[in-house]
Amino acid sequence: MTHETADFEVPSDEEIARTATLDDIETVAARLGLGPDDIEPYGSNKAKLRQEAVDAARERGRNGSLVLVTGITPTPKGEGKTVISVGLAQGLARLGEDVAVAVREPSLGPVFGIKGGAAGGGYSQVLPMEDINLHFTGDIHALTAAHNLISAMLDAHVHHGNDLEIDVDQITWRRSLDVNDRALRETVVGLGGSANGPPREDGFGITAASELMAVLCLASDLADLKRRVARIVVATDRDGTPVTVDDIGATGAVSALLRDALRPNLVQTLEGVPAFVHGGPFANIAHGTNTLVADEVGLAHTDYLVTEAGFGADLGAEKFLDIVSREGAAPEAVVVVATVRGLKRHGLDMWPANFDVLATPNPDAVRDGLPNLFHHVSVLRDFGLPVVVAVNRFPDDTDAEVAAILDACATREIPASVSTAHAEGGRGAEELAELVRQQVSSGRADLQLTYDLDDSLREKITAVATHVYGANDVTFSKQAEKDLNRLVEHGFDSLPVCLSKTPYSLSDDASKTGVPTDWTLHVRELYPAAGAGFVVALTGDVMTMPGLPARPAAVDIDVDDDGTIHGLF
Amino acid sequence: MTHETADFEVPSDEEIARTATLDDIETVAARLGLGPDDIEPYGSNKAKLRQEAVDAARERGRNGSLVLVTGITPTPKGEGKTVISVGLAQGLARLGEDVAVAVREPSLGPVFGIKGGAAGGGYSQVLPMEDINLHFTGDIHALTAAHNLISAMLDAHVHHGNDLEIDVDQITWRRSLDVNDRALRETVVGLGGSANGPPREDGFGITAASELMAVLCLASDLADLKRRVARIVVATDRDGTPVTVDDIGATGAVSALLRDALRPNLVQTLEGVPAFVHGGPFANIAHGTNTLVADEVGLAHTDYLVTEAGFGADLGAEKFLDIVSREGAAPEAVVVVATVRGLKRHGLDMWPANFDVLATPNPDAVRDGLPNLFHHVSVLRDFGLPVVVAVNRFPDDTDAEVAAILDACATREIPASVSTAHAEGGRGAEELAELVRQQVSSGRADLQLTYDLDDSLREKITAVATHVYGANDVTFSKQAEKDLNRLVEHGFDSLPVCLSKTPYSLSDDASKTGVPTDWTLHVRELYPAAGAGFVVALTGDVMTMPGLPARPAAVDIDVDDDGTIHGLF
Repeated sequence: MTHETADFEVPSDEEIARTATLDDIETVAARLGLGPDDIEPYGSNKAKLRQEAVDAARERGRNGSLVLVTGITPTPKGEGKTVISVGLAQGLARLGEDVAVAVREPSLGPVFGIKGGAAGGGYSQVLPMEDINLHFTGDIHALTAAHNLISAMLDAHVHHGNDLEIDVDQITWRRSLDVNDRALRETVVGLGGSANGPPREDGFGITAASELMAVLCLASDLADLKRRVARIVVATDRDGTPVTVDDIGATGAVSALLRDALRPNLVQTLEGVPAFVHGGPFANIAHGTNTLVADEVGLAHTDYLVTEAGFGADLGAEKFLDIVSREGAAPEAVVVVATVRGLKRHGLDMWPANFDVLATPNPDAVRDGLPNLFHHVSVLRDFGLPVVVAVNRFPDDTDAEVAAILDACATREIPASVSTAHAEGGRGAEELAELVRQQVSSGRADLQLTYDLDDSLREKITAVATHVYGANDVTFSKQAEKDLNRLVEHGFDSLPVCLSKTPYSLSDDASKTGVPTDWTLHVRELYPAAGAGFVVALTGDVMTMPGLPARPAAVDIDVDDDGTIHGLF
Repeated sequence: MTHETADFEVPSDEEIARTATLDDIETVAARLGLGPDDIEPYGSNKAKLRQEAVDAARERGRNGSLVLVTGITPTPKGEGKTVISVGLAQGLARLGEDVAVAVREPSLGPVFGIKGGAAGGGYSQVLPMEDINLHFTGDIHALTAAHNLISAMLDAHVHHGNDLEIDVDQITWRRSLDVNDRALRETVVGLGGSANGPPREDGFGITAASELMAVLCLASDLADLKRRVARIVVATDRDGTPVTVDDIGATGAVSALLRDALRPNLVQTLEGVPAFVHGGPFANIAHGTNTLVADEVGLAHTDYLVTEAGFGADLGAEKFLDIVSREGAAPEAVVVVATVRGLKRHGLDMWPANFDVLATPNPDAVRDGLPNLFHHVSVLRDFGLPVVVAVNRFPDDTDAEVAAILDACATREIPASVSTAHAEGGRGAEELAELVRQQVSSGRADLQLTYDLDDSLREKITAVATHVYGANDVTFSKQAEKDLNRLVEHGFDSLPVCLSKTPYSLSDDASKTGVPTDWTLHVRELYPAAGAGFVVALTGDVMTMPGLPARPAAVDIDVDDDGTIHGLF
């Protein structure tokens, strides 16, 4: 038993990003078989695909294999799924495969909050980092503008006579901003007299939580986007009937605002692998993965498309499979990312996470945390998919801790590999890439979804809770019972379900680590995300507007007089 | 005397824009002597100048002559200054001059509200129209994000212990959104308990009204932008001392968010003349013209740069000269735009404007309205600048009405020309261009500003009110007197002044047409726009957040499945 750690020192993400040499975006596009006319460059190193190229890719159809990267029940710092996704793509490229990676767009709120930037890290980053973390190609800003246009048209309708007889107390469409701002969580708007009113309670969510983000990520094309936008429910009238975006006349303007946002953004990884960074919905109240359009374009133009789902497999992968794959994009293999510190938290039954303690070598704690990993693996295998475990190795991880994971996986015949993609880029993920390639080549993928759309909403929720989360049963609050009835009444019962739950436990209680047993999922409330095309079931409280800490990351961000930006990571 | 009207039929702006053939943006840049490496293309037809090109232009210094386009006291539909600016630039190009035009960026709020798009019109448009009117290169979105980051950091500071002892009732930094939304004018934020609070009164302005927009438009470079951002006053502490953006630690992050927005956007007019569309501040609480950086780059690379100022000459041109020209960009000639309908409103002493009545031929009413035009001409001549009158001719204008204006100008020896730039493009503004060229060549420009910075704030305001507006005197409310004292106390008395007043009258009462006499300007309140670098004096009420009408323009906007957008004009 040793406490040796891997011997590598990695410069800061910012330093790596700044000293990287990027290929022209035309060169990157050429790796996908796309010509200069297929892309619309935004500067030298980013582009949006042109509409014609997107249409051609859809016509061409799927060529490559989809690899989904998910993770164990994470710590609040995450397990490093993006690093592994990027590293795996780079590893596959090193093996000579045509590959691309598709990940979510970072949101400005967290960039200035606690988390800092989010585009991978170390030598497995997506570049240009500054652009991707700030305004990028403007997709999220477009969503913010479109979201708030709906709000303005809704309130203007009410103000100007309210022909639709909207019940002012039943306006469910809140406003959106891409910022971490707790002061906007609960507001009153329409104050200042009858010229501005009527006054009513309202609030803001972060743009990533907007249903429009989910719509953008699930729309197959502009026509589908318009259909989805049109049916979004924004309120109910005095009879309790849903009022939609189309009812208030906003479908066309909103879709026009989102036209360009629907076209995938192309950038590159540090090693020049084509990367789609496109869309970024929440993984609890929404489905938590990049746009379907990006996946489709990637699959038409590569042998392998690596993509990721948010949070742990219970939230992100379940939704990817039961919602997104149901629309067409089914993976051939799944990678489950685990970290020593993440497993240690489960082994130590620790909540909240104390990262100093988690940095202390403790192979036994890692071992005690493994059931969480194996639960996720088992669930994913029940989905009919081959699984590979990727241990995302950190500099402080000891050999003994890493061995504890690998040994246990070997015993259970789960392919597993240690990845040093952060410290070494694709080279640190070659073995992982080889394992993934073997699993894909096996052709064993045979996707079995958790429920049928014909099942009742109650049955669907129960299936996810028991099969995926490991709950004994599900209870519904009085409100949830009412909501269920109303959803059936309004014809939303044939939609898939999207369960909102804490990401920090398999259960609905963040303090329960490992694999909680003998527990019942409690559903508090349900509502239709009719545009996205699912019913959201809320369990615990959901925070759709983060706040800033006492010392936000923004304080350390600066820009030199020559335009160099510091402190984004 | 006839009631004949000009015989032309102009397709819709949208139709003209859609059928236009655009040059590649590299070709447009080449007309300015800029190479492919000087620009960062955003697609085929828009670009941002690279930082190096901006720096090189500043080093190169001014080469061309600046022509400022302003107008009479307008109707709410405007006098068509952008059409004349674009048309004049096209006219100068037809005369063989190297020319560019610089105009303001349209704001999304009005695009979806009453006004529709704003990038000129007819055959004097700036293209690509759809992009310019929607997200364009993201500058306004960047401002929105930066503005609200300040708000979030401010409220987070108060929430987390309020070390700066900010007086929660004296937070002057409201939030911003680029939307017309009356429900956001007056709000309460921070509700929902101590996790979100403290609760306080707040409100949103449209992004164009943000002081950050004025800062962006007046900053000479990134270093200057940072200095200006740092000193923006957001609140006062419990001792009444100003609290700045820098105090709350937001300077760097805000400047990083605005880095790219500071670089000018290059597009083209319908006839291929290089056009800078960059920045768009209000013309009452701010100075109402595009960025200084765009003017400087344009003047370094052309013989003529045509630019416009907001509203009538009393508001827009006065501020351009007393604020912007003071920073360096002084015009060689000024064009005052007048319309038959605008003068008719003054002649008929009509408020609010009834556009049906204004469309009825009435040369006498036009003649009776001329004093308003001559007041503006006289004020601009007092500024030491040669003036040309441009009659922006509409299809319904009769020859007799147009002649009434030209004859009166001839009598007073004011160079004047009828422009049909809307209907005929540059061809319809060639005579105007020739007149402007003559005035510029005369070399008579000798700018005399309205006041010295050493004058007291009271003297500066009085000088603008009496010399420019024609008031007898100025009175100050009790609040304004307090504000004046506080501004002196905090060292803001050496700044220029920016008077906010109705644009629909030379006086502070929108119902007073023509040239009101025997009136006193009443100043209600003053505050420092310390980042922009001026003191704002409010007279009447200022609306910084427009509302949507009962049937907003957005209702008629749509996008086809192939991406063609309809209804923007």
